[in-house]
Amino acid sequence: MTDRPFRILAVNSNTDERVTGRVTRAIGDVLPGCHVEGITAGFGPRGIGGRADLTISAMATLSAAVDHPGEHDAIIVACFSDPGLHALREVLDIPVVGIGEASFLTAVQLGARFCVVTVGPRVVPVIEEAVQATGLASRFCGVEIVDTAALQAPDPVPLLLEGVEKAVRGRGAEVAILGGAAFAGLAARVGERSPIPIVGSVEAAAVQALALIHLKAGRPKVGSYARPAVKPMTGLTGRLARLLASEAS
Amino acid sequence: MTDRPFRILAVNSNTDERVTGRVTRAIGDVLPGCHVEGITAGFGPRGIGGRADLTISAMATLSAAVDHPGEHDAIIVACFSDPGLHALREVLDIPVVGIGEASFLTAVQLGARFCVVTVGPRVVPVIEEAVQATGLASRFCGVEIVDTAALQAPDPVPLLLEGVEKAVRGRGAEVAILGGAAFAGLAARVGERSPIPIVGSVEAAAVQALALIHLKAGRPKVGSYARPAVKPMTGLTGRLARLLASEAS
Amino acid sequence: MTDRPFRILAVNSNTDERVTGRVTRAIGDVLPGCHVEGITAGFGPRGIGGRADLTISAMATLSAAVDHPGEHDAIIVACFSDPGLHALREVLDIPVVGIGEASFLTAVQLGARFCVVTVGPRVVPVIEEAVQATGLASRFCGVEIVDTAALQAPDPVPLLLEGVEKAVRGRGAEVAILGGAAFAGLAARVGERSPIPIVGSVEAAAVQALALIHLKAGRPKVGSYARPAVKPMTGLTGRLARLLASEAS
Amino acid sequence: MTDRPFRILAVNSNTDERVTGRVTRAIGDVLPGCHVEGITAGFGPRGIGGRADLTISAMATLSAAVDHPGEHDAIIVACFSDPGLHALREVLDIPVVGIGEASFLTAVQLGARFCVVTVGPRVVPVIEEAVQATGLASRFCGVEIVDTAALQAPDPVPLLLEGVEKAVRGRGAEVAILGGAAFAGLAARVGERSPIPIVGSVEAAAVQALALIHLKAGRPKVGSYARPAVKPMTGLTGRLARLLASEAS
Amino acid sequence: MTDRPFRILAVNSNTDERVTGRVTRAIGDVLPGCHVEGITAGFGPRGIGGRADLTISAMATLSAAVDHPGEHDAIIVACFSDPGLHALREVLDIPVVGIGEASFLTAVQLGARFCVVTVGPRVVPVIEEAVQATGLASRFCGVEIVDTAALQAPDPVPLLLEGVEKAVRGRGAEVAILGGAAFAGLAARVGERSPIPIVGSVEAAAVQALALIHLKAGRPKVGSYARPAVKPMTGLTGRLARLLASEAS
Amino acid sequence: MTDRPFRILAVNSNTDERVTGRVTRAIGDVLPGCHVEGITAGFGPRGIGGRADLTISAMATLSAAVDHPGEHDAIIVACFSDPGLHALREVLDIPVVGIGEASFLTAVQLGARFCVVTVGPRVVPVIEEAVQATGLASRFCGVEIVDTAALQAPDPVPLLLEGVEKAVRGRGAEVAILGGAAFAGLAARVGERSPIPIVGSVEAAAVQALALIHLKAGRPKVGSYARPAVKPMTGLTGRLARLLASEAS
Repeated sequence: MTDRPFRILAVNSNTDERVTGRVTRAIGDVLPGCHVEGITAGFGPRGIGGRADLTISAMATLSAAVDHPGEHDAIIVACFSDPGLHALREVLDIPVVGIGEASFLTAVQLGARFCVVTVGPRVVPVIEEAVQATGLASRFCGVEIVDTAALQAPDPVPLLLEGVEKAVRGRGAEVAILGGAAFAGLAARVGERSPIPIVGSVEAAAVQALALIHLKAGRPKVGSYARPAVKPMTGLTGRLARLLASEAS
Repeated sequence: MTDRPFRILAVNSNTDERVTGRVTRAIGDVLPGCHVEGITAGFGPRGIGGRADLTISAMATLSAAVDHPGEHDAIIVACFSDPGLHALREVLDIPVVGIGEASFLTAVQLGARFCVVTVGPRVVPVIEEAVQATGLASRFCGVEIVDTAALQAPDPVPLLLEGVEKAVRGRGAEVAILGGAAFAGLAARVGERSPIPIVGSVEAAAVQALALIHLKAGRPKVGSYARPAVKPMTGLTGRLARLLASEAS
Repeated sequence: MTDRPFRILAVNSNTDERVTGRVTRAIGDVLPGCHVEGITAGFGPRGIGGRADLTISAMATLSAAVDHPGEHDAIIVACFSDPGLHALREVLDIPVVGIGEASFLTAVQLGARFCVVTVGPRVVPVIEEAVQATGLASRFCGVEIVDTAALQAPDPVPLLLEGVEKAVRGRGAEVAILGGAAFAGLAARVGERSPIPIVGSVEAAAVQALALIHLKAGRPKVGSYARPAVKPMTGLTGRLARLLASEAS
Repeated sequence: MTDRPFRILAVNSNTDERVTGRVTRAIGDVLPGCHVEGITAGFGPRGIGGRADLTISAMATLSAAVDHPGEHDAIIVACFSDPGLHALREVLDIPVVGIGEASFLTAVQLGARFCVVTVGPRVVPVIEEAVQATGLASRFCGVEIVDTAALQAPDPVPLLLEGVEKAVRGRGAEVAILGGAAFAGLAARVGERSPIPIVGSVEAAAVQALALIHLKAGRPKVGSYARPAVKPMTGLTGRLARLLASEAS
Repeated sequence: MTDRPFRILAVNSNTDERVTGRVTRAIGDVLPGCHVEGITAGFGPRGIGGRADLTISAMATLSAAVDHPGEHDAIIVACFSDPGLHALREVLDIPVVGIGEASFLTAVQLGARFCVVTVGPRVVPVIEEAVQATGLASRFCGVEIVDTAALQAPDPVPLLLEGVEKAVRGRGAEVAILGGAAFAGLAARVGERSPIPIVGSVEAAAVQALALIHLKAGRPKVGSYARPAVKPMTGLTGRLARLLASEAS
Repeated sequence: MTDRPFRILAVNSNTDERVTGRVTRAIGDVLPGCHVEGITAGFGPRGIGGRADLTISAMATLSAAVDHPGEHDAIIVACFSDPGLHALREVLDIPVVGIGEASFLTAVQLGARFCVVTVGPRVVPVIEEAVQATGLASRFCGVEIVDTAALQAPDPVPLLLEGVEKAVRGRGAEVAILGGAAFAGLAARVGERSPIPIVGSVEAAAVQALALIHLKAGRPKVGSYARPAVKPMTGLTGRLARLLASEAS
C-alpha cells in the first residue's frame, strides 16, 4: 500500500445505473479521501425482489467484480442480500464487504438490539435468514417495512423516519439499519431526526471496507475461503474462467 | 395427477454426465414406479468444490431446470449444497427438493443426532451453514471427512463405512448421511454393514419428492416463495426470461 | 417387501373411535395404493388436553401399537404431541412416524417460516416445546389458536382458514400446519382457499411414512434408539412384556 | 404450613427398592429437619435404560405419586430423566421437583459450564435432550460416561472421581452432576476429593424442593400447567381416575 | 455448620437504605429460621438505572460484601442485574446468590415460560441480556413494564397485578417474576390474586441461598471461579486488597 | 470534525504501563494518520486474570476514560474482556470500541469460523461468555490456549503461531484472533506465516474505531444506551460524578 488514495470498487448487483451512481456517491461522501469506482451488474433484474433474482444477481455480481480491470484495495457488494459476497471472498485476494453483513456487524456496536427498515414485505424472511447466517439473530429485533412509495418519493426521509420510530416503539429497536442500496446516502439525514443511531447499509460497508483495508489481515490459504482449485469448467469466459477453470469451454 | 407414473426431473448441478447417470439410476431404484429423467447443468464446474462454484452452479441449475421441456411432478436438485433450490421453489409450481435439505429432514426421523460423511475438508463449514439454515443445528453432530480417494475407488463402500464407524465412536452419531450426488446409490450397501441407519442424500431427496407429490400442498401466493413479479431484466434467455422478465434484453 | 401394497398402521392415541376413523380415511386418501389400518388407544382420555393426558396416552399408544398383530411397513402415531413416538422407534423394527414431527419436517420444505393452527390455548407451550425438541425453532412463527368450536362445527374449514389468514398477516407465516388428528382430511379443502400451503398433520405423517418405507434405512444397532436390553420388568403384559422384560411379573 | 416438619415424598421411578432406600436416606441427610418418605414405582423396569422404559416409568411415576395417601409439602421424582414430572406438576397442587432438572438449575449457580457424569453411553442423547428442553444447552459441556461397573462397585467414588477429572481436563467442566438416582448419597464423598463442585442429582432435588416449599408460589390457574379439565377417560383407577376422569371406565 | 441458625448476608447494591430494610425483612419472612443481615453499598447510585450505574454498583457490591465482618453461610446480591455476583463467587468460599439469576432458575420449575414484571423500559435489554447469559432465553417470554408509579404507590400490588395479567394475555406467561429489590416482600400478596405463580426476586434468592447452604457443594479449585491469584494491585483497601493483592498500593 | 487528524484515546484497563505503551504504538501503526493517546487504569490489577479483576477494572476503566481531559473522536477499551465498555457507551457521546467485541465482529468478515488464541485456561469461559453476549456463538470454534510463557518470551510469535496451527487442524478455524492487549502489535508478524488470517484484537479495535468515526451515527436518545439520568449518587468524584450525580457525596 503506497501513498496513493485507497481504491474501492462498488458493484451494484442490479442493473439500474442510477442506483450505481447513488451508491458510489454515498461511499465517496463517507470516505472522502478514497477513490471510489462504481460498476453495474451486466445482466439480471433492474431491481432485486426475490430468491430467483438473487441467484441471478449473485452470478452477475461475481462476473462483474472479477472481470473489472484495475487494482483495488477492497470491493463492496452493494445489494442488501450480499449476492456473490462469499464467492468473491474465495476468489479474490482483497477484502470484500457486503452491505448487509457490514450493517449488522456495525449496528451491534451502537446498541443492544438492531432492526432493519426497508421496503417490500416479501424480503422479510430473506433478511431474517441473512441475520441468522451472520450469527446475530439474538441481537436482532426484526424488519420494519415502510411503504414502497419511499423508493420513489422526492424525499424518502419522512417515510423512513416513521419506520424507525415505529420500530423504536414496537420492537424496542436501539439501532436502525436502512437496508438496501437504494437508500444510499440517506442515513445522515434520517439520523439527524431519529431517536436512535441510523446505519446506512452502504455507508456501513464503506467504513467496514476502510477497516479491513487498514487491518491487512491477508487471505486464507486453507479452509472454505481459500483460493479454489482450478478444475474443468465450461461456459465461463473472461477473468472468471482464467481464475477457476483448467480448460476453456 | 392422472394415472400415469409420477415424473421426476433430477438436475445435476455440476457438468459431469456420469454423475447425472448415477443420480438418475439411484432415484429410479428407490422409486421403482416413477419415471425419472436426469439432466446436467449447461455450464459451470465438473465438480463443485467451493463457494464460487456454488454461485455459478446455482445459476446453471436454475437455468437448466426451468428451460427443460416437459411436465414433471417434482424436481430434485442433485448437489449437496442445494444450489438454486430456493430460486426454483419461487419460480416453479411443482415441489422442488434438494438432496442436502432432504437428507437432514429425513435423518432426524431416524435417530437423535445425525452426521454427514463426505469428502473434502473444505466443504465442512459450507455443510454446517446449510444445516444451520435448515434449522437443525441442535440435531447435528458434525461432518466426518473420508479420503477423497473414496470418489475414485472401485468400491467406495469400505472407506465410507470407516467414516460412519468413526462418527459413531467419536461423535455419538445415530444416523449418517452420505453427502453428495457422487455417492448416489451406495447407501443401501453401506447400510447393510453399518451400526446405524444410512441416509443416501440422493435417496432422501427421492423419497421426499415422493412425499411432497402425494401431499399436493400447492404453492404459496404470498410470502418469500410466491411467484416473483416480472420486472425489467437483461441478459436472460429462454423460459427463465419469459418467467421473470417484463422486457427482453 | 414384496409386491403387496404397503401396510400402514395408524394408532390414535386418544380413545375416540370417530377420530380413528377420520385418521384412517385421511391416510388412505393421501396414499391411495396403501392398505391402512387404524386402531384406538385401549385406555386414557377421549381427547388429549394436557401433560398428564399425554403421559397416559404415551403408555396407551406404546401398548396398542406393540400389541396389535400383523405385519406392517410403518406406524403412524396420530396425536399432534407424538406420545410414545420415541419409545416405539426404539422397540420396533419398522419406521414410526409422528404427526407432529412429520408436519414440522414437511412444512420447512414449503416455505421460510411455518405456523401451527389448532384449538386450545393450553397446548401452545407444548407445541413450542415439540418444535424446539425437533430442532426447528428458528423456522417456527408460533401457534395460531382458533375457537374450539372448530372441532364441533359442521364445516370447520372457514374457522381454520381464518386462523391461517391471521397467521399470514400477523406472523408472516409462509406455511400452516393444521395441528391435530381431529383435523385429518381437511387440509386439501383449506388449502384450496388459502394464500399459503396447508400441511395437514395426519397427511404429512402419511407421506413421511411412505418416504421412510421407500428409504429402507433400517434400524440402529447402537445408540439411544437401539433395541432396548431386556431387563427385570413388572406389570407389563402381552407383546410389550415379551419385548422388554426378562421375567414376567 | 404449620410447625410440623416438612414432609417430602420421593418417588423412585424404577422398581428397585434398594434404590428407593438410598434415595430416601440421601434426601434425609441433606434435609435433616424434614420427614422424607420414599415409594417405588408399582410397575415397569427395575432399571431405566431407554426410551420405552421412560414411557412406562412416566406412567408408573404418575400413578404412584398420585395414589399415595398422605399430605406432603413437595414431591421428588427420583429418576434422572424426570419421567412424569410435568404431568405431576399439572395434576398436583404442591411443588414437584425432578432430579434431572433440579441438578441442571442448581449447577449453573456454581460454575460456568456443567457436565453430567453417569453410566451407560445409551443415555447420552436423552440427557442432552433434557438439558436442551430445560433451556440450558449453552451452559452444558456434555456427558462423561464412566464404566457401568460403578453401579456395582463396593465403592463407586474412585470411578466417579475419575470421570469428573476427565471432564475437567477434556471438557473444561466447572461443575459436575452425578446423574442418576443410583448415585444418591455419594456427592459429598466425591466432592471432598474433586477439583470442582459436585452436585448429586438427588441432593439437588432435595434442596430445590426445600426452596420451592419456602417460596410458596402456588399453582397456576391458567396455562399448560393449570389443573387439567376432567374428561371421559377409560382404564384409569384410583385417585388418578378421580382427578382426571369424568366417567369411570 | 453447627446448630446455630444459618446466617445470610444481603447486600443492597444501591445506596438506598430503605431498600436494604425491605430486602432484609423479605428474606427473613421467607426463611423464618435464619439470621439475616442487610448491608448497603458504600457508594454509587441511590437507584440503579443503567449500565454505568451497574459498573459502579458492581464495584460497590464487591467491596461491601468482602469488607463486611462476620461469618455468613451465604450472600445474596440484592439487585436484579446481579452486579458483582460473579466476582464474589470467585473471591469468597460461601455460596453467593443473585436475585436475578435465582429468579430465572426458580421460575422455570413453575411453568413453561416466564416473564419479568418491572419498571423502566430502559432496563428491558439489560434483563434480556441477563436471561440469555444465564442460558434460559428459550424459556423467557419477555419483560412487562409497569408504570414507574408502582415504586412510589402506597400499594403497588394493583399495578403489578395488572402487569402480570397483561403478560398472561399478551405473552402467554405461565410464571411472573417481580424483578427488582424494590419489590421485595410483595410477591405473596400479588400471588394471592394472580392467575399464575409469582416469583419475588428477593424471595427466590432467599430460597436458592437456603438450597445452596444445604447442598454444601464447596467451591472450585480450578476453572473460572477458582480463587484468583494474588497479583500486583493498586488502589484497593481493606479485605478486598488482602484477598487479591500481592502488594499494597 | 475538522481537518485535524482523528484523535483516539486508548484506555488500558490494567495498571501495567508497558502494556499501555504497546497498545498505543500498535494502534498508531494501524492508523498512521491518527493521533493516538494511551492512558492507564488508575487502580486495579497489573494483569487481569479473572472475574473480580474484571469488576474492579471496569470501574477503573470507566473512571479513567471519563476523567481524562481533551477532545477525542473515539475511545478504545484495551482489555480483551471489554470492562466498562457498555458503561462508557452510555455515558459518552463518542464511539467506544472494545478490543474483544471488535475482534469478533471483524473476524467474521474474514472466514467461516473464528477462534481466539490466548494465554491462561482460566479465561476460556469468560471469552465464551463474551462471544455469546455479542451474539456470535454460532461462528465461534473455541479458545486455543498457548503457554503463558508467550507473554514473557523475547519473541512470542512462534508460540502464537503454534496455537494458530493447532486451531486450524483441531477446530477447523478459518480466522484466529490474538486475544489480549498484551499481544498488541504482533498480528502482522504472526499473519505472515499463518495459513489463516490473523486478527490482532487491539488492531481490530483500531480499525473499528476508524469505521465508527467515519460513520458518524450519533448517539441514542432512547433505549439502554441513552444518556443516563442524573440521580443521587455517593462516593464518585471528578467528571464521572458531574455526569451521573445530581448531588455530591
